[in-house]
Amino acid sequence: MSEFGLDIAATDGPARAGTLRTAHGAVSTPTFMPVGTAATVKAMTADAVRATGAGIVLGNTYHLMLRPGPERVAALGGLHRMMDWPGPILTDSGGFQIMSLGKLRKLDEDGVTFASHIDGSKHRLTPERSMAIQHSLDATITMVLDECTPFPATEEVARASMEMSMRWASRSRAAFIPRPGYALFGIVQGSVFPELRARSAAALREIGFEGFAVGGLAVGEGQAEMFAVLDYTVPMLPAERPRYLMGVGTPDDLLGGVARGIDMFDCVMPTRAGRTARAYTSRGVFNMRNARFADDARPLDPDCACPCCQKHARAYLHHLFRCEEMLGPMLLTWHNLAYYQSLMRGARVAILDGRLDGYAAAARAGWQEGDG
Amino acid sequence: MSEFGLDIAATDGPARAGTLRTAHGAVSTPTFMPVGTAATVKAMTADAVRATGAGIVLGNTYHLMLRPGPERVAALGGLHRMMDWPGPILTDSGGFQIMSLGKLRKLDEDGVTFASHIDGSKHRLTPERSMAIQHSLDATITMVLDECTPFPATEEVARASMEMSMRWASRSRAAFIPRPGYALFGIVQGSVFPELRARSAAALREIGFEGFAVGGLAVGEGQAEMFAVLDYTVPMLPAERPRYLMGVGTPDDLLGGVARGIDMFDCVMPTRAGRTARAYTSRGVFNMRNARFADDARPLDPDCACPCCQKHARAYLHHLFRCEEMLGPMLLTWHNLAYYQSLMRGARVAILDGRLDGYAAAARAGWQEGDG
Repeated sequence: MSEFGLDIAATDGPARAGTLRTAHGAVSTPTFMPVGTAATVKAMTADAVRATGAGIVLGNTYHLMLRPGPERVAALGGLHRMMDWPGPILTDSGGFQIMSLGKLRKLDEDGVTFASHIDGSKHRLTPERSMAIQHSLDATITMVLDECTPFPATEEVARASMEMSMRWASRSRAAFIPRPGYALFGIVQGSVFPELRARSAAALREIGFEGFAVGGLAVGEGQAEMFAVLDYTVPMLPAERPRYLMGVGTPDDLLGGVARGIDMFDCVMPTRAGRTARAYTSRGVFNMRNARFADDARPLDPDCACPCCQKHARAYLHHLFRCEEMLGPMLLTWHNLAYYQSLMRGARVAILDGRLDGYAAAARAGWQEGDG
Repeated sequence: MSEFGLDIAATDGPARAGTLRTAHGAVSTPTFMPVGTAATVKAMTADAVRATGAGIVLGNTYHLMLRPGPERVAALGGLHRMMDWPGPILTDSGGFQIMSLGKLRKLDEDGVTFASHIDGSKHRLTPERSMAIQHSLDATITMVLDECTPFPATEEVARASMEMSMRWASRSRAAFIPRPGYALFGIVQGSVFPELRARSAAALREIGFEGFAVGGLAVGEGQAEMFAVLDYTVPMLPAERPRYLMGVGTPDDLLGGVARGIDMFDCVMPTRAGRTARAYTSRGVFNMRNARFADDARPLDPDCACPCCQKHARAYLHHLFRCEEMLGPMLLTWHNLAYYQSLMRGARVAILDGRLDGYAAAARAGWQEGDG
């Protein structure tokens, strides 16, 4: 089993194209990770997820600890086997969803107590417990438990939150059981304050991680602020380790993140959009419920090789959503994920060719141009 | 283009194994046709339907005339192209759904007027209009417009209904535009009255059809009565033409129908069941929401080659339904259809080997035995 790590094949400014080596296989970077919250990428079979070109998927510790429970996942041979995804899986720590979904939350220095959004049952998560759960899930990449600092936050609040997250990062590191090809990632916090981001990055480097995530973004600060944070935060991270921008984002966000040196992304956007008739295409975003598609015999995206675009007309997609047929979300989720993957593949090839700026400009021009 | 027809390879008592030749390819019989109501087999891609082994699917004229409308289907190249099913498609006439779904129905000698169950819009269907719509859909097999006699009905009501259906069958025949490899099927009515079934069959033979359906069954009469009707009705149909039992049924119904000389079946049961956590297996019917499956690491059906059974544990299916994940209905629909197809393939092989009785007895024993 080879050690976990990132082999960087080329750089283009801050952007990098590489290969992530893991216990569950290699992944070309930059890469977008489809979100498989409850051990399933919604509306997709694992075969379909593979067919989109995805190399790594994400699972949510919060959801999986509640249902079916980490012991059950372990008894079924781990998340990979349960969901038929032998490739690498990254699991988040559970902290973010506790804050967004959990009820009656009580945060203290030791951890967080919360009530399940499903049945109100009481649960406790600490850095140690999060590591144990992610271990039971057999996550290839485990994330430290942190507090995702709310936005906006005063510098004082952001500092206290970040400092506790760094103490939790230490405890996560101590509790994580290393295995060849597996990784623990630290998460930089500090909101929109350069000095806090710098302290956080330094603390994480001091502890030592196999990869580094930028957290606390895509929480309402806007793209310009997010890019500004990346501009000063990414250079604080070790160049030889993978960098992961959590919970981001639109196709344009992804290109901006790649240009700033991010290797990994995850977001519910393409899957959630697919279920609500929103299509991400090389010609911009369409709402397939729009009546203008009722007689549109063209493929959704003429530049796309996915089955939705190769086999069906826009009018058919429109019909499926109008009739609330499950095949609408199924096909459109497939397309959106395929589009995100093709965007990352294109960015990778462009980095290898030293022309990422041109690639991004052409993609943005296509979105502007629309579909005539 | 070869002519439409059935080549019978072997018989075993009244049961037959054959090949249905059509403009859109050949289908091995006996065959089960998955129902693709609104130009999609619910929760399945067309590729997945093919992977189950299905050779022919069904579309519903009532639904398609309302949404997206026959002109739109025609403009998209017909139903085959729209839904990515180049194989044969059978469409019903619309009559049955008007009676079960339509509002403010008014039936007269010329046809039926009804209000859409979707938006209340008023529509009119006649034998001529039904033929024109099914032509626009490019149905490989078109069904005559008939009245599905309600059950129970007095002999007087059943006779009047059947006689009008026979006049409509004549008008359907006259309006149908023949094309090589395409077919028009007549439908025997007459409720549970042998004399009426005989008159209906004679009338249809007199008119002449490429295939013959037995209608007005699976409407509440029970399996014993249904089999009794088949016992005396099937011998009244031309032996060399395909026979189709409409809207049937459970796996046991199918084996009983095959044994009585039926070649084709359709039913929403496996697809609807798949969406509501009911699994049809070689060991009987399971409800996957049942808590006994929460820790069951076995495949759903150890005898099944479908991806659901090959790749996942029962506990995973249980988890997906518990979390209301779309993948639950997707995988279980896939399995149920695969199970129905494997049952028909098994019956076909058994007929070719002259051991259908033994095959059916073994299947029933498996259902009785359960999963231990």
